[in-house]
Amino acid sequence: IISKLPQTPTTIFSVMSALANEVGAINLSQGFPDYECSPVLTDLVNKAMQDGHNQYAPMPGLLSLREQISQKTEKLYGATYNPDSEITITAGGTQAIFTAISAVIHPNDEVIIFEPAYDCYAPTIKLMGGIVKSLELHPPDYKIQWDMVKKLISNRTRMIILNSPHNPTATILDAEDIKQLNDIVTNRDIIILSDEVYEHLVFDGQQHLSMARYPELQQRSFIVASFGKLFHTTGWKIGYCMAPAYLMQEFRKIHQFNVFSVNTPMQVAAAEYLKDENIYLSLPDFFQQKRDHFREGLKQTRFELLPCSGSYFQSVRYQNIADEKDSDFAMRITRETGVAAIPVSAFYSRGTDHQILRFCFAKKQETLDKAVDRLVKL
Amino acid sequence: IISKLPQTPTTIFSVMSALANEVGAINLSQGFPDYECSPVLTDLVNKAMQDGHNQYAPMPGLLSLREQISQKTEKLYGATYNPDSEITITAGGTQAIFTAISAVIHPNDEVIIFEPAYDCYAPTIKLMGGIVKSLELHPPDYKIQWDMVKKLISNRTRMIILNSPHNPTATILDAEDIKQLNDIVTNRDIIILSDEVYEHLVFDGQQHLSMARYPELQQRSFIVASFGKLFHTTGWKIGYCMAPAYLMQEFRKIHQFNVFSVNTPMQVAAAEYLKDENIYLSLPDFFQQKRDHFREGLKQTRFELLPCSGSYFQSVRYQNIADEKDSDFAMRITRETGVAAIPVSAFYSRGTDHQILRFCFAKKQETLDKAVDRLVKL
Ligand SMILES: CSCCC(=O)C(=O)O
Ligand SMILES: CSCCC(=O)C(=O)O
Repeated sequence: IISKLPQTPTTIFSVMSALANEVGAINLSQGFPDYECSPVLTDLVNKAMQDGHNQYAPMPGLLSLREQISQKTEKLYGATYNPDSEITITAGGTQAIFTAISAVIHPNDEVIIFEPAYDCYAPTIKLMGGIVKSLELHPPDYKIQWDMVKKLISNRTRMIILNSPHNPTATILDAEDIKQLNDIVTNRDIIILSDEVYEHLVFDGQQHLSMARYPELQQRSFIVASFGKLFHTTGWKIGYCMAPAYLMQEFRKIHQFNVFSVNTPMQVAAAEYLKDENIYLSLPDFFQQKRDHFREGLKQTRFELLPCSGSYFQSVRYQNIADEKDSDFAMRITRETGVAAIPVSAFYSRGTDHQILRFCFAKKQETLDKAVDRLVKL
Repeated sequence: IISKLPQTPTTIFSVMSALANEVGAINLSQGFPDYECSPVLTDLVNKAMQDGHNQYAPMPGLLSLREQISQKTEKLYGATYNPDSEITITAGGTQAIFTAISAVIHPNDEVIIFEPAYDCYAPTIKLMGGIVKSLELHPPDYKIQWDMVKKLISNRTRMIILNSPHNPTATILDAEDIKQLNDIVTNRDIIILSDEVYEHLVFDGQQHLSMARYPELQQRSFIVASFGKLFHTTGWKIGYCMAPAYLMQEFRKIHQFNVFSVNTPMQVAAAEYLKDENIYLSLPDFFQQKRDHFREGLKQTRFELLPCSGSYFQSVRYQNIADEKDSDFAMRITRETGVAAIPVSAFYSRGTDHQILRFCFAKKQETLDKAVDRLVKL
């Protein structure tokens, strides 16, 4: 059998979470909360099941949920998405990303991605016969060098994948990035895939610059979002994709044969739960407090903290502590110190190693404190 | 934008269900139950959520659920599947089918399918650059002409897709089919994708001939199954795929970047619920009773009933009633008579029309009775 993805190991998230479980380490590797979601939300799911909402949802998702999403998007970013034709509920953000790429990337189409990059982009592009053109970003600020992007553009460039707030680097796009991006795509047939799953996790009063804010960009963008991040329920695997109708039409052609539809009771609950705008308006503060607390703690360690503007990840450099490869160091401290992190080199296709670890701070305060107590010993 | 799937309309299931809802017809088109699933099951989901099982499941699925599946498969079909490396939980049977095809079909690989065929096979093959070789089966018995299959085989044949019990025709594979299939694939590099989502819905004391029963076939097969059918919860979108490790490894490479993992609380509940073997052992009788009741009722109509050995679908010919195309007839009786069905021509890529409708009988007795009362008038 000839592999479609020959050089594809198991994702680093599975690897590190499995190791953390095996050795009983505090798991700050894979990004997920260790505290409970709201009982209001789980009660809504239970009610939906009791009310008999257990059969197929409509293929694009429950209309009431798409309407809530449309209203939220309008309120936050001023963009109008038609729930009928421009929003589709997906089995998580990952399925939305996979489906968007599948829907528009033809063999030999080129896609520009920025590394470190979330690990599903490149394999999906390759699976569709596309060519990955990756541009490496470097610590500590991980700024996109737009003149370098221009050099990567060819007449086969079909897509640029953006991710803001950015996983793993915790940076966000700023107004200058948007301007440069706009200059590049204007008058070109380039689609934007904007992975905005951390849209509500932006700190210090900064704004999330969603593609939905910019009509010229919005009209060529797939925007991907995640209820896992919004509701603290990463295991429910529910998210969505928004795009103008001409793109969404192609998206749905794939979606209907990939998963057809998405878990019904969770959609019913999400539609009801989202009516309370405080759910998302309170999120920046909620996570900023965790970030601040964790950073404060980490200052007692010998790690060098990198900036964190968004997402629920904090990166650190460990050059004062060790000179190992980051994958070795991550494995070792998981076993010896009892704290698991993600080695950021896993997000570079060429394995570029800046000796940086990524910690997830979507955790109870006591978990973060316990982790810091252990990391201080390094 | 150049479509990846240019000739792809919205699936017939969405079209007919939407029409049924619009005109308030009894919906016997799309296959889903209209009665409640067990409260034991929904209570288990609720408990799982209360117990905090709301974060990412492991990428291949919850181990306890994979163990239950392994045991059930051993008990029913005598096959041993390693839960670690040979079973993966999916976001429904459709995602399993999509992923299996994606994992092994390269551009220009040929895939043999039998029509009428469930509508996700062909588009997925095409999306991967594969070539669909379809063989039409004909009513009333829809037997596979194996000598015709032999003629379709070339050295580019990479996969044969089987579906037993068969949707929409309600036929099942018999021992002679298995023998012929085995003759054809022996000494050839052909993978079998066996869509067995109706495995437990086989009637009149007949046996489901799962590929898992035949070691020579099993070792080259992806087997796809569905909890939606087993638990009467099509909207939960949870299913699974079983395959020998060398195939499952490729499957998971795609799965991890397509959906990564599947709804956690539903998996926790399924693992517990499946411990009661009566859940699946009682299913043939449960549905056979519905089939018998519905067929009895339909005998009062002018429809000609086709045989029904498995699945929850009953097909009928309407040549005594009308001479329209089946899609026109299906639309018309939905509006005029108030009963929605699927026109079987939708499952033929060439639109072959034997003037047959498919009704779903996974419904409350009173729903079936009400539908019959209306259909009698035709
Ligand atoms: C899909 S598991 C990974 C979760 C996540 O987004 C991360 O840890 O980066
Ligand atoms: C995915 S919706 C279709 C349900 C079904 O299996 C059918 O009606 O044939």
